[in-house]
Amino acid sequence: MTDEAFPHVVERTGALLDEVRARRPRVHAITNAAAQTLTANLLLAAGAAPSLTASAEEAPAFTARADALLVNLGTLDAERRAAIPWCIATARQAGRPWVLDPVFVDASPARLDLARLSLMGRPAVVRCNADEFAALAGEPPSPASLQAFAARAQTVAALTGPVDRIEDGARGVAIANGHALMARVTAMGCAGAALVAAFAAIEADAWLAASCALLALGVAGEIAGETAGGPGSFPAAFLDALHRLDEPEIRSRARAS
Amino acid sequence: MTDEAFPHVVERTGALLDEVRARRPRVHAITNAAAQTLTANLLLAAGAAPSLTASAEEAPAFTARADALLVNLGTLDAERRAAIPWCIATARQAGRPWVLDPVFVDASPARLDLARLSLMGRPAVVRCNADEFAALAGEPPSPASLQAFAARAQTVAALTGPVDRIEDGARGVAIANGHALMARVTAMGCAGAALVAAFAAIEADAWLAASCALLALGVAGEIAGETAGGPGSFPAAFLDALHRLDEPEIRSRARAS
Amino acid sequence: MTDEAFPHVVERTGALLDEVRARRPRVHAITNAAAQTLTANLLLAAGAAPSLTASAEEAPAFTARADALLVNLGTLDAERRAAIPWCIATARQAGRPWVLDPVFVDASPARLDLARLSLMGRPAVVRCNADEFAALAGEPPSPASLQAFAARAQTVAALTGPVDRIEDGARGVAIANGHALMARVTAMGCAGAALVAAFAAIEADAWLAASCALLALGVAGEIAGETAGGPGSFPAAFLDALHRLDEPEIRSRARAS
Repeated sequence: MTDEAFPHVVERTGALLDEVRARRPRVHAITNAAAQTLTANLLLAAGAAPSLTASAEEAPAFTARADALLVNLGTLDAERRAAIPWCIATARQAGRPWVLDPVFVDASPARLDLARLSLMGRPAVVRCNADEFAALAGEPPSPASLQAFAARAQTVAALTGPVDRIEDGARGVAIANGHALMARVTAMGCAGAALVAAFAAIEADAWLAASCALLALGVAGEIAGETAGGPGSFPAAFLDALHRLDEPEIRSRARAS
Repeated sequence: MTDEAFPHVVERTGALLDEVRARRPRVHAITNAAAQTLTANLLLAAGAAPSLTASAEEAPAFTARADALLVNLGTLDAERRAAIPWCIATARQAGRPWVLDPVFVDASPARLDLARLSLMGRPAVVRCNADEFAALAGEPPSPASLQAFAARAQTVAALTGPVDRIEDGARGVAIANGHALMARVTAMGCAGAALVAAFAAIEADAWLAASCALLALGVAGEIAGETAGGPGSFPAAFLDALHRLDEPEIRSRARAS
Repeated sequence: MTDEAFPHVVERTGALLDEVRARRPRVHAITNAAAQTLTANLLLAAGAAPSLTASAEEAPAFTARADALLVNLGTLDAERRAAIPWCIATARQAGRPWVLDPVFVDASPARLDLARLSLMGRPAVVRCNADEFAALAGEPPSPASLQAFAARAQTVAALTGPVDRIEDGARGVAIANGHALMARVTAMGCAGAALVAAFAAIEADAWLAASCALLALGVAGEIAGETAGGPGSFPAAFLDALHRLDEPEIRSRARAS
């Protein structure tokens, strides 16, 4: 990315945190059972308004009143299978962004099929880790393969890991913030994808929204890693840090390039 | 309420906390997925014995051995839809109190219908927020509309918010305890409704049980708000405070009128 | 047990903690809704790699790639009922150990029936409390009844409570570590059974695996009980302690006989 893009991501992150706190966007999250509480609490800590209903009868009504939708493919039970296509259709018809988190598509052929069908519904952002990307794209992640995937699927590819990488086919940024304990707490990535959705509810440039969200999460994780006594106390420290996070803190800690 | 009623609520709250710890009432809670862990942990912290099974095949058996039932309409999947009427019938037949928490009835017509049907099963207490009350009662909450609703439905209306208000048609109390962080943690209200059920298992006067439970929750929340570093560390601080809560602490902090 | 067995359990516990951290065994856990997050976080804190999917369509594929399986009978909904037999069959065919946690079989006849059927699938270990054992075995727990049950079902009986007792029909050990707050946090036992599965993935002697896991959990609980401010802050302190636990700490605290 150019020299100009990097400070833009840093500045926009602080502004987006402020705007989420002021405007309280509604995010409807269909997510896996183990991620539900952390996802709702992350959205609340950031100032957004979560809902989590997954039943096919009700989730479309919740999606219709939301400003963004998150679809996480974990816990793919009958209710969620039936609900997901209707929720995607509802978000698209309302012109609201939605984020796809293809959890564990590398572990289940049925889930990989559903992820590929879901991609046809044009998610604004796909958030995944290296194994999930490889299963979905058919090749391991690299700046080039992420760009190609993003261009092909007309989405933003947001790869999370020790270094996050966000590509939309034209622009790319790598974010080196974060902490090793984030990998020792379940659903950190799943919950983080909800912040991507909250930011996308406000920032129409989905690449910028995803980049800012992953930067905010990485910085909050870094702060939490300095105070937590281990993986047990990490989630509380992380949510506390995200709740307080501001532009000066982000500016002083950002390691994006 | 009269001058006599207020000290009675304060005194009875400390006594009910002691009685729950001594008698360990069983509370069966059919509640939403994101609230299950906090609900169980709140009941355990208070000294009660929770169970959470939601399947239609098993939940009535759990209800039959419980001292009170909580029905929360979040996560209204097929299993819960099928289980709820049988559990309500079981509690009524056994003469045990049950508490209705009509979560998000303002967001889903299907849920509002079910809440109205459930009201026919005569919950001892209905716990809701302002939006949920307005959807259920057809008018915004006020002392008069809460009283009218309670009288009409032959229940106790327990409205939670910055100030809680508990009305049974004849008596009313407003509780101003609590902390702003309670609104930044998912399922605090849902879990709190389980304490209403635990108190109702012991105190036959459902208005008194609900008033005392909301006072205890508000005071515990206030204490937690003074020590927590943010919304992430709030739930642990809240449960710790509830676990230790006693009559002198309640007396010194109660703001009821 | 003989004098020789006791130091062996203590030594092996430290070694197994190291091996789990180095080898990161995959544990697939079908467990109840309220236990999912804590179970995943306990496995991650110990260094193992959890997965939790419960749907019949996907859970067998996750089991096939796992090193051990945990089947907890809480939240026995239609998805889990359908998934459990296929997952057990998958684990057996792959020669992987599986652990049965017959939660609340004392409260539901349907669940007791399923637990008895599941026993025919030869779990390596059955983890239960006193009430669950009594329902399953038809008599209250004692060293003799645990031995008889273990011999009859060709499994290891791991009874948890103020004192844990692990019997395989020939060998027995009693572990007196732990803390009273462990009974005031939901799903501590359920999550602990996942560590039994993680240890069984590495240690082929299921009695030794279960004994070491319960010793590690008891010592971590004891440490957490010394620092936690109550049941709310206990789970974080417990996971932090388990994450740091090592052989010298175990040796100095073990109360096994």
